[in-house]
Amino acid sequence: MATYKLLLLPGDGIGTEVMAEVKRLIAWMNSHGLGSFETEEGLVGGAAYDAEGVAISDATMALAQASDAVIFGAVGGPKWADVPYEARPEAGLLRLRKDLALYANLRPAICYPALADASSLKREVVDGLDIMIVRELTGGVYFGEPKTIVDLGNGQKRAIDTQVYDTYEIERIGRVAFELARKRGNKVASMEKRNVMKSGVLWNEVMTALHAREFKDVALEHVLADAGGMQLVRWPKQFDVIVTDNLFGDLLSDVASMLTGSLGMLPSASLGDVDPATGTRKSMYEPVHGSAPDIQGKGIANPIAMLASFAMALRYSFGLGKEADFIETAIAATLDKGLRTADIKSDGTTVVGTREMGQAVIDEV
Amino acid sequence: MATYKLLLLPGDGIGTEVMAEVKRLIAWMNSHGLGSFETEEGLVGGAAYDAEGVAISDATMALAQASDAVIFGAVGGPKWADVPYEARPEAGLLRLRKDLALYANLRPAICYPALADASSLKREVVDGLDIMIVRELTGGVYFGEPKTIVDLGNGQKRAIDTQVYDTYEIERIGRVAFELARKRGNKVASMEKRNVMKSGVLWNEVMTALHAREFKDVALEHVLADAGGMQLVRWPKQFDVIVTDNLFGDLLSDVASMLTGSLGMLPSASLGDVDPATGTRKSMYEPVHGSAPDIQGKGIANPIAMLASFAMALRYSFGLGKEADFIETAIAATLDKGLRTADIKSDGTTVVGTREMGQAVIDEV
Ligand SMILES: CC(C)[C@H](C(=O)O)[C@@H](O)C(=O)O
Ligand SMILES: CC(C)[C@H](C(=O)O)[C@@H](O)C(=O)O
Repeated sequence: MATYKLLLLPGDGIGTEVMAEVKRLIAWMNSHGLGSFETEEGLVGGAAYDAEGVAISDATMALAQASDAVIFGAVGGPKWADVPYEARPEAGLLRLRKDLALYANLRPAICYPALADASSLKREVVDGLDIMIVRELTGGVYFGEPKTIVDLGNGQKRAIDTQVYDTYEIERIGRVAFELARKRGNKVASMEKRNVMKSGVLWNEVMTALHAREFKDVALEHVLADAGGMQLVRWPKQFDVIVTDNLFGDLLSDVASMLTGSLGMLPSASLGDVDPATGTRKSMYEPVHGSAPDIQGKGIANPIAMLASFAMALRYSFGLGKEADFIETAIAATLDKGLRTADIKSDGTTVVGTREMGQAVIDEV
Repeated sequence: MATYKLLLLPGDGIGTEVMAEVKRLIAWMNSHGLGSFETEEGLVGGAAYDAEGVAISDATMALAQASDAVIFGAVGGPKWADVPYEARPEAGLLRLRKDLALYANLRPAICYPALADASSLKREVVDGLDIMIVRELTGGVYFGEPKTIVDLGNGQKRAIDTQVYDTYEIERIGRVAFELARKRGNKVASMEKRNVMKSGVLWNEVMTALHAREFKDVALEHVLADAGGMQLVRWPKQFDVIVTDNLFGDLLSDVASMLTGSLGMLPSASLGDVDPATGTRKSMYEPVHGSAPDIQGKGIANPIAMLASFAMALRYSFGLGKEADFIETAIAATLDKGLRTADIKSDGTTVVGTREMGQAVIDEV
């Protein structure tokens, strides 16, 4: 059995609380011969700033580069509202994404049957929902230059952000989306604002050409991002795979999260290219939710998004698809039993804390 | 009674169909002494391109400048998918917004009681909803330069869009939002991505300062735009006035539209500054929906968004608030009677076409 090196970065707030459950899951898998994982731990976000004055240190970045996968909790909180922009907690996350070249962010939005009543949407709208949002993660307005604020004098400032996309960046994320679609519902919806943005025009053009060249067997549809957001709320089951840019992906995946009952349910994988020499790829796994300072320290955070993110690591980084299935099935079974953390509670269910929910999932595996 | 000059720009697709109902409403108001309106008509969008080779001609722009308000239908459609970028139908709309300096886009999202079951959200989530989205409309990534696609050779292109915001642009839209809030629920949620975008940092800073200086009596909350999109779906009634930039406003208002049952229900007003000399302001009124080529020519489009947009014109451009109330009450009464266009139909209601719905509203006024 191959041994994999994991770098655990709990971060801030509930990040450390949900990471504790992953650690127990890893220990359990190690001791039951379901895997062989070595873990190291590092600081990121506000925790790193407090200890080291940066949102992530070069030493931690080196650990990340040397690991087989990074397991990431969450960063940020009001405590760091006034730290310099370059050292804000989110900068640690953005550096990891950029320096590891994790351009493909996979955000599944799955509505577990037991939670079909937990969302603000009608049951029939979300029941059985299973969509995959493929978000470009290392380009666009997140990283384009210039990105600056200039002082114009007379109390006036000018802020500038730049969205940049090159053909190859759009092509490689498109390829990820089309390949995923082939293993799923065979449909891709590409979302941009070509009627307003030049990057939308190029995005549309590159997706169309890639589709015609390599993926004619997959159905491709172009949707304006604003209409896409609307359709996600109106009738989300029309979608299979959605591919979109960094900023639209950020917004649309948060909207999609509400279809699943709670942000506390949603895992994500961030992947780089497969290295042809080793057959491996850089990768990071994180829950879509943030550090939730309001519930930090209460032991009530939902660990499911974090545990499901670890399941994605098994599937996408280590070829342990069967083991990933175990975990996902265990999550569904735990929910079917009526166990709920506070964020997904409803009439007739039993409310438990982070630790109990984590243990219940491990018990089911 | 003052006489007002209206420029009607029906545009493309169902734009002409819903505009026909506004024309009949105007004629009815004129003949019943409820107002005195002179109308002219012009071409915009694909219709203008077909006739004049541009998305809006200088002559039509001159009419718009000379009018007291522009009433706009909708533009675009697959027919014009391949026209040059600068002449695409949307360019006509964008030129009107920019050249008339209509920086404040007001998009109310109101859930009429009769439609509380028509949306994909649960009744309790949307019933009684009344929020106002204030979208900045003449800045940001819509108009910033550079906005271009450059050829890098080797089959590679680079697309660039630029988001630019100056202090004064943020301040004036903030002022619109705070002033509106004072007449409503006295709460403003300002949405941006300060954790990623410099324009978000400046936006946040300017709103905070403006609030401290002039609007301490209004509650101000800062919400990250992705979290804002999520909250709009989770529990929209937490919001009163939302103020946000051009691109986020585009997406968030489309998401919000789904809370009201149908995009066919949503009006909007786009306003410039009040001219201190005349006390008047440039303005344009348009439904949030588009040209809907799929239902064009069938006579089934919902005219309510267009009629409600005209009501906003009465309120915001002509000080005819009472008359605006008449129209809005007539719309609610028509819905209460069970009349529905196809987009909002449900069990036990009577489905009617554009003309019948328009007439029913006029009959109620
Ligand atoms: C924390 C923040 C920088 C991040 C983003 O905007 O990408 C988050 O919202 C996400 O979606 O992962
Ligand atoms: C048609 C398009 C240019 C426009 C926009 O993006 O602003 C539309 O989506 C809107 O919201 O009015």
